[in-house]
Amino acid sequence: MAEREFREQELPEQEFPEQDPVKLYVPKRKNLHTVRDPFAPVGVFDSGVGGLTVFREIMRQMPEERLVYFGDTARLPYGAKSRETVIRFSRQIVRFLRSQGVKAIVIACNTASSFALETLARESDIPVIGVIYAGALTAARTTKNGCVGVIGTRGTVKSRIYEQVIRSLNPEVRVIQKACPLFVPLVEEGLIHDSVTDEIASRYLQELKGKYVDTLVLGCTHYPLLRSTIAKIMGDEVTLVNPAYETAVELKEILGREKLLNPGQVQADAAPADGEQYRFFVSDLAESFTDFAASILPGRVKNAQKIEIEEY
Amino acid sequence: MAEREFREQELPEQEFPEQDPVKLYVPKRKNLHTVRDPFAPVGVFDSGVGGLTVFREIMRQMPEERLVYFGDTARLPYGAKSRETVIRFSRQIVRFLRSQGVKAIVIACNTASSFALETLARESDIPVIGVIYAGALTAARTTKNGCVGVIGTRGTVKSRIYEQVIRSLNPEVRVIQKACPLFVPLVEEGLIHDSVTDEIASRYLQELKGKYVDTLVLGCTHYPLLRSTIAKIMGDEVTLVNPAYETAVELKEILGREKLLNPGQVQADAAPADGEQYRFFVSDLAESFTDFAASILPGRVKNAQKIEIEEY
Repeated sequence: MAEREFREQELPEQEFPEQDPVKLYVPKRKNLHTVRDPFAPVGVFDSGVGGLTVFREIMRQMPEERLVYFGDTARLPYGAKSRETVIRFSRQIVRFLRSQGVKAIVIACNTASSFALETLARESDIPVIGVIYAGALTAARTTKNGCVGVIGTRGTVKSRIYEQVIRSLNPEVRVIQKACPLFVPLVEEGLIHDSVTDEIASRYLQELKGKYVDTLVLGCTHYPLLRSTIAKIMGDEVTLVNPAYETAVELKEILGREKLLNPGQVQADAAPADGEQYRFFVSDLAESFTDFAASILPGRVKNAQKIEIEEY
Repeated sequence: MAEREFREQELPEQEFPEQDPVKLYVPKRKNLHTVRDPFAPVGVFDSGVGGLTVFREIMRQMPEERLVYFGDTARLPYGAKSRETVIRFSRQIVRFLRSQGVKAIVIACNTASSFALETLARESDIPVIGVIYAGALTAARTTKNGCVGVIGTRGTVKSRIYEQVIRSLNPEVRVIQKACPLFVPLVEEGLIHDSVTDEIASRYLQELKGKYVDTLVLGCTHYPLLRSTIAKIMGDEVTLVNPAYETAVELKEILGREKLLNPGQVQADAAPADGEQYRFFVSDLAESFTDFAASILPGRVKNAQKIEIEEY
């Protein structure tokens, strides 16, 4: 009981209404699959470039799949936006991705997964998955001492979404959260291996080290790029959970179950007119998109096409 | 001539079409002032919180003025967005501010000043001023050795807007630019006096120190909050130019010339129904707005009201 009291003190105040995480995070099964074409692409979206770490994991684990990426570069970041705004933006993006004939959608953004997954999955007749459930499930299964750390942006931490999902899976798990707002700008400035990033990471993670977490969720799509720095500070005894990796595993499982995995043979009438396996769309021609995308997907990003997302 | 060749090599490539800075930055005089009420408020807008440093300077220099602030927190930051998108967003904001009966508008955002001032001033019948012209003019007048440094976000530096305006005022001035993308997140993380910020600032500014600038323009609205750190690194021999201060001076001059300065007496029928001298509107309820606003305008920010900017 002392343990439980301690946890109650440590956690920040609840700011969003409680929800049923199971209802939220298990894809709806009814009315699925009006697009039942295994050769159709998978849609992946994020507020900007961060979701490319999820895109990369899907490429690695399912090299036969065609992928369409959308980065909402005109309106990023989502982290400080309200639930209502994020749902509105996400609906527009889903309408755009549906116009590209996708067979499934991956919300590769923690904020949009947290705020919009339930709504989008309810409204959709194809599978829609977010980045939170798979990472939370892995964390709940991995921890041995029942103490899981979660790092993310201010928005993700404030939403307490990982905590809700992890504890819905195992109410005995204690979840310690820590916001690391400088990680994204440091990564985007290219300071991935740098003394300043080491110093900032040490400050952010010190608090978690003092609380004996044995499992740490990288709860922001940029953070896998700082994996080695974070691993060095946390030490070998802490297992890092990368939701990007786990989400790709979950996607593969769902596509397999639904017989929607791309068999990898060319089907002439289903092939895209432009023949591209990977296509990238943005809501604004942010040069940082192509620079960053090229740096994490070398040779894969020919160009990104701008679309007017507000028209969808 | 060796000097000139050196400059040509040092400057980054031009990426935006050249424009006539005089045409761009001097407010249009024709058809002005359909709202000619000195008791009306001045509208100030930015993509987020940065413009509050300009708001603060106007408060200090013109304590009688009523001010309406709009921060586009749903769509920030503007720095990486295209000219076309920034103009579209800025037009919506001007329509909103006009609905509040403003007598003049200050674009307290470098990106919007750079991309949208010409269009907005042309379309408007009240004075519209940006943050770039006044700072550039002061820099051109201040430098003794003809070597001016400009620091800003990636977007501002890439636009080369300060360089264009400074050199239109004095073609003999050499302008050295340096993007400092981590300054904004460091300020917003509250690390204003911190060893990490000192280290990052040293790295960014080293390049400018080696080039003998005697005048440095703080070309981003957040940067005045790092003034003491920047001053320490640059040394006493370098004059820092704060465009927020210079813009407030310019506003006062224009309002004075147009007989639009608020005389400070209460005019019953012109007083706002809510009696507030300073009002704040945002496009999304970003908590960071009120936190940050309260930190730089202590006691002045009671609340910020959310409006649907896309409906304007």
